[in-house]
Amino acid sequence: MKYQAEINVMPLKELLDPQGKAVVSGLKNLNLSAITDVRVGKHLSIIVEADNETDAREQIDTACNKLLANPVIEYYEYSLQALN
Amino acid sequence: MKYQAEINVMPLKELLDPQGKAVVSGLKNLNLSAITDVRVGKHLSIIVEADNETDAREQIDTACNKLLANPVIEYYEYSLQALN
Repeated sequence: MKYQAEINVMPLKELLDPQGKAVVSGLKNLNLSAITDVRVGKHLSIIVEADNETDAREQIDTACNKLLANPVIEYYEYSLQALN
Repeated sequence: MKYQAEINVMPLKELLDPQGKAVVSGLKNLNLSAITDVRVGKHLSIIVEADNETDAREQIDTACNKLLANPVIEYYEYSLQALN
C-alpha cells in the first residue's frame, strides 16, 4: 500500500531563525511590515510503500531522524494519507 | 487581528527536483528504499497583522509572488488561521 506524507522540518522554537529574520526585513522593503514573525524550514512531500500505517510511520520517523532533520536544531512533524 | 499562515513553496510538478532525487538516494543508503518519490521545498510559518481575512490573503499573495516563491520554477500554497 502506498502512503503520501507531507513533512515539515522546522527550526526549534527556542532557537533564533536567521533566515526568517532575513525574510522579515526583505518584506519590510516591500512595504509588508504587517508580516512580523517568520520562521523558515523545509517541506518534503514523499511517497512510502508500506504494509500498513504503523510501518509507514516507522519508516518516516527513521528517515527524519537519520537524514532529513537535525534534532539538535530542528523538529519535524508530518501528516500521512493512504493513496488508493 | 492576527492571522497565522502556513505556506509551502514547492518546485513545480513538471520540473525535475534534484534535491528530492538526492534525498531518495540518501535514503536508499539507509535501507529505506520503500520511500520512492520525494520533492523538497520550503515551509514558512508567518504571522500577519490584518483587518480581515481578505486583506491577510492579499498580503501573503504579494509576499509570495514578490519574495518567497519564484513563479518560474515554484508554486505556493497556504492555509490561514485567525489567532485569538
